[in-house]
Amino acid sequence: MSRIAYVNGRYLPHRDACVHVEDRGYQFADGCYEVVAIRNDAFVDAGLHLQRLRRSLLALSIQFAMSDAALIATMTELARRNRVQEGFVYLQITRGAAPRDFAFPAAARPTLVMTARAKPLLDPRLLTEGIKVITIPDLRWARPDIKSIALLPNALGKEEAKQAGAYEAWQVDRDGNVTEGTSSNAWIVTRAGEVVTRQADRGILNGVTRQGLLRVIAASGLRLAERPFSVAEAKVAAEALLSSSTNFVLPVVTIDDTPIGDGKPGPLGRKLGALYADYVAGGGSGRR
Amino acid sequence: MSRIAYVNGRYLPHRDACVHVEDRGYQFADGCYEVVAIRNDAFVDAGLHLQRLRRSLLALSIQFAMSDAALIATMTELARRNRVQEGFVYLQITRGAAPRDFAFPAAARPTLVMTARAKPLLDPRLLTEGIKVITIPDLRWARPDIKSIALLPNALGKEEAKQAGAYEAWQVDRDGNVTEGTSSNAWIVTRAGEVVTRQADRGILNGVTRQGLLRVIAASGLRLAERPFSVAEAKVAAEALLSSSTNFVLPVVTIDDTPIGDGKPGPLGRKLGALYADYVAGGGSGRR
Repeated sequence: MSRIAYVNGRYLPHRDACVHVEDRGYQFADGCYEVVAIRNDAFVDAGLHLQRLRRSLLALSIQFAMSDAALIATMTELARRNRVQEGFVYLQITRGAAPRDFAFPAAARPTLVMTARAKPLLDPRLLTEGIKVITIPDLRWARPDIKSIALLPNALGKEEAKQAGAYEAWQVDRDGNVTEGTSSNAWIVTRAGEVVTRQADRGILNGVTRQGLLRVIAASGLRLAERPFSVAEAKVAAEALLSSSTNFVLPVVTIDDTPIGDGKPGPLGRKLGALYADYVAGGGSGRR
Repeated sequence: MSRIAYVNGRYLPHRDACVHVEDRGYQFADGCYEVVAIRNDAFVDAGLHLQRLRRSLLALSIQFAMSDAALIATMTELARRNRVQEGFVYLQITRGAAPRDFAFPAAARPTLVMTARAKPLLDPRLLTEGIKVITIPDLRWARPDIKSIALLPNALGKEEAKQAGAYEAWQVDRDGNVTEGTSSNAWIVTRAGEVVTRQADRGILNGVTRQGLLRVIAASGLRLAERPFSVAEAKVAAEALLSSSTNFVLPVVTIDDTPIGDGKPGPLGRKLGALYADYVAGGGSGRR
């Protein structure tokens, strides 16, 4: 539970943390966000998160003056005030509040909101038992590579997964290929031992954990292919995985109730999870 | 300028009208909205707006207990407090505030926000000179028929129009057909005198002004076709128009700088505008 939130320069009791009803984040989903994991009292790849945040801001033409150093200092202070040693900081930047009009306001000042919450990042039950995913059509707009707060289809998809007793929904494009989960990237390991994840073009969000895993895989000598894979291919894969900032690497044991491999977490997923945990413990990409 | 806003049962000075940072409207665009015009101190087709609002709420599985009568009473009171005799009431309903999680919260209470603003609905300059539109790719999610607040692509498109010196951007699907404007429906009048607008399937939002115009056209004996039309067809049309709740009917005189007809507002657009104004003065569809 978040106790203290940050809103535009002020640390506030969580219950009092408010934004104006005409904030463009509220009326137009006109903003972007990041979720940065905290493990052993340190941010995980904060540099990669802030790099992506700047990319989102640029794509949306949001002029945001605060430096990376100031953002990190605020994130650090918020984590401290919330006593989060393991969990995450959520940060959101919108174009700001202005009288409602679709076009950009001449003079709005961006709104910065942060919350922090404790959460175990390595859930023993999920790692041991694995998780279930369902597949759903990818209904999202054409630019999911921008980490915008226009997340309604993601929320609807996650709820559909939950209703089906699954942990995540993998979104599927018109060609029958998996794009990604509603809040995670999707991976398979083929029977030939190749690790496959979709290439990071405009069709998916380039996850920071995805980027970390790519480094880990390159360093480990495992075989990798960044390419689309179909639902059919995923269902006959040796293993399947998802990656996200707050889940690290999780084994997927069924897709639409079809068991993957023998229906239990597999060796390569376990290995990647361990290698990624080492990577995090070693300071991640080294980009602060 | 809105002076008094309504938030969850309270009338507040506009500047103090806030929602929680974890309202799902702010973090997930998890909500829907309506803009109801006020003309001569009366709502324009409020019944059709509320009918559509219920449809959006149902599509998003948002349980919202307040009755239409209570909504109308609140809208009326807010318009009165803001002294709006011509303008609009904006209302937005989100799934409510809850600790951030993509799936629906078990126990959130929906948030209802309303604002009201005076605005002349029939702008003499726009009606006399007509407006320019540009065309842009339709980047939106697959369900623009739901009037959700996930409006980021619409905002980006409107800004693109503004930067190009245009009033609106018509969004174009993969087949080269116009879907609709970023906040209005699109119409053409063919050289054979047929009025054409895209059918209201899942590809467009079924505008309330669009619905009113369809009634007006049916009553007037004009020829109508609800079907897709291409950008190419629009550029050689006799006339082009847009419709929206806060603009009623506006003549489009250029598309991507191509003059439509003789590049001036045409007779059928003028006639439809007048018929629609009569319709509004006569109480609209009669559905309250």
